[in-house]
Amino acid sequence: MKLLRYGPAGQEKPGILAPDGTIRDLSKVVPDLSGKFLSPDSLKAIAQLDLNGLPVVEGNPRFGSCVVQPGKFLCIGLNYSDHAAESGMAVPAEPVLFMKAGSSISGPDDNIVIPRGSLKTDWEVELGVVIGTTAKYVSEEDALSHVAGYCLINDVSERAFQLEGTGQWVKGKSADTFGPTGPWLVTTDEVPDPQALDMWLEVDGHRYQDGNTRTMVFGVKFLISYLSRFMSLQPGDIISTGTPPGVGLGQKPPVYLRAGNKIRLGIGGLGEQNQLVVADPGEKS
Amino acid sequence: MKLLRYGPAGQEKPGILAPDGTIRDLSKVVPDLSGKFLSPDSLKAIAQLDLNGLPVVEGNPRFGSCVVQPGKFLCIGLNYSDHAAESGMAVPAEPVLFMKAGSSISGPDDNIVIPRGSLKTDWEVELGVVIGTTAKYVSEEDALSHVAGYCLINDVSERAFQLEGTGQWVKGKSADTFGPTGPWLVTTDEVPDPQALDMWLEVDGHRYQDGNTRTMVFGVKFLISYLSRFMSLQPGDIISTGTPPGVGLGQKPPVYLRAGNKIRLGIGGLGEQNQLVVADPGEKS
Repeated sequence: MKLLRYGPAGQEKPGILAPDGTIRDLSKVVPDLSGKFLSPDSLKAIAQLDLNGLPVVEGNPRFGSCVVQPGKFLCIGLNYSDHAAESGMAVPAEPVLFMKAGSSISGPDDNIVIPRGSLKTDWEVELGVVIGTTAKYVSEEDALSHVAGYCLINDVSERAFQLEGTGQWVKGKSADTFGPTGPWLVTTDEVPDPQALDMWLEVDGHRYQDGNTRTMVFGVKFLISYLSRFMSLQPGDIISTGTPPGVGLGQKPPVYLRAGNKIRLGIGGLGEQNQLVVADPGEKS
Repeated sequence: MKLLRYGPAGQEKPGILAPDGTIRDLSKVVPDLSGKFLSPDSLKAIAQLDLNGLPVVEGNPRFGSCVVQPGKFLCIGLNYSDHAAESGMAVPAEPVLFMKAGSSISGPDDNIVIPRGSLKTDWEVELGVVIGTTAKYVSEEDALSHVAGYCLINDVSERAFQLEGTGQWVKGKSADTFGPTGPWLVTTDEVPDPQALDMWLEVDGHRYQDGNTRTMVFGVKFLISYLSRFMSLQPGDIISTGTPPGVGLGQKPPVYLRAGNKIRLGIGGLGEQNQLVVADPGEKS
């Protein structure tokens, strides 16, 4: 299934993409795609619906993030060996974990707002894993049973805030609009192997990133098991699993986003995102 | 006002500490102490209640965290110069920001569970700042107007997970039960100066930490203004502002928590916490 949230920011309703290409409203079935409603029972109930009996959503509504602002927005750094190299960093012995603020989450096609004072806003196409059931000290073998589905994420990053200030990457990862997520939460039945997904990102038509999840250093199973040793993963939590090579920081010379840039990115089976980059309205020009 | 949440974990109800020492139930007034109900209007409405007209909570209920699991649980590292020195780190030029998982939040007197494989679980008494209204690009002058109140936090930390693994502190800060918060959310009218609060922590009766918020490197006003440049601060978000000297890591030799230890900590006017340290039930002995 391809679950989604549609409507104006802050007023999204849950929906589902039907096989006929229409969006069907789910708000009579579940109040929202929050963690509570991503359980196997809840997803099974949705899967058994006759979609023809659900209202068609007319027009071209905005997509919101495909899950509600999560309890945790966990991210893995340097998880593709070539990306580590282009960042001038070693491939880590264990996963590098950082967090994005949940408030950075935005719709897949919402504008990306460059923060005030930013000169180094960058892109990162990533596979997002959405947790469906609580995972704590889980084995790799059992890990994928805790996944509700997968989604496309642009882990937008301000490199100076992330790397040149004092300590910890969260400062450069958390601006509002830095977490376009969706369009769809694609349930696991449609993603038999999360380590075999093509992924790509273009800015103004130039393809900068062109990878596949098979080259992850630490795969999804391992990541879930590993993270669950340090904290419980809870329904609705998102794990963004790192980016392949081709970010702006890795270009020679580096290339960063400017107001007016148009970003397009996608992962096979998980849909596409289209973002316009804009300046913060309070930025001094 | 001293607002609180009481009752079994996951089923907490909002309450208020009345001048007569009783807890009065607030659940007919606000559904919970989530961000939405920490606005100035909401707090004003509670302040105008006749507490004698509210039901007395009988017995000695468990306290939950004094705010609901927040959107963001932001923490400042090395924010007391003497603590930086004992950690063997320089006082940073700008605030060091990291995040704790929201799922680490627990009640002020709940057990602290040492994670499996941990040898270096440590304590940190901290002043928590709870946001009441959205703060984005706010000035220092305006910063405190965005605060709903203050609370006591034990920023429990696993030093090996935090410092000895690959990258980023969040791994050592986020285990379940690593964020005792409360007992009270003390509104700003009762805390005229957040930079003049005594704070202390004892383990098994030995006083390890004995400080005052006046020795913070970066004060609350500055922190709110600074953080609001990197992300919007939203109602219900918590900022834990760093710990004074005396953590286990700073002892010579270092001292870490063991099952059976009893922790007691407090901040002047914000109440006390009492925690029993226990092993994870799945830990191999």
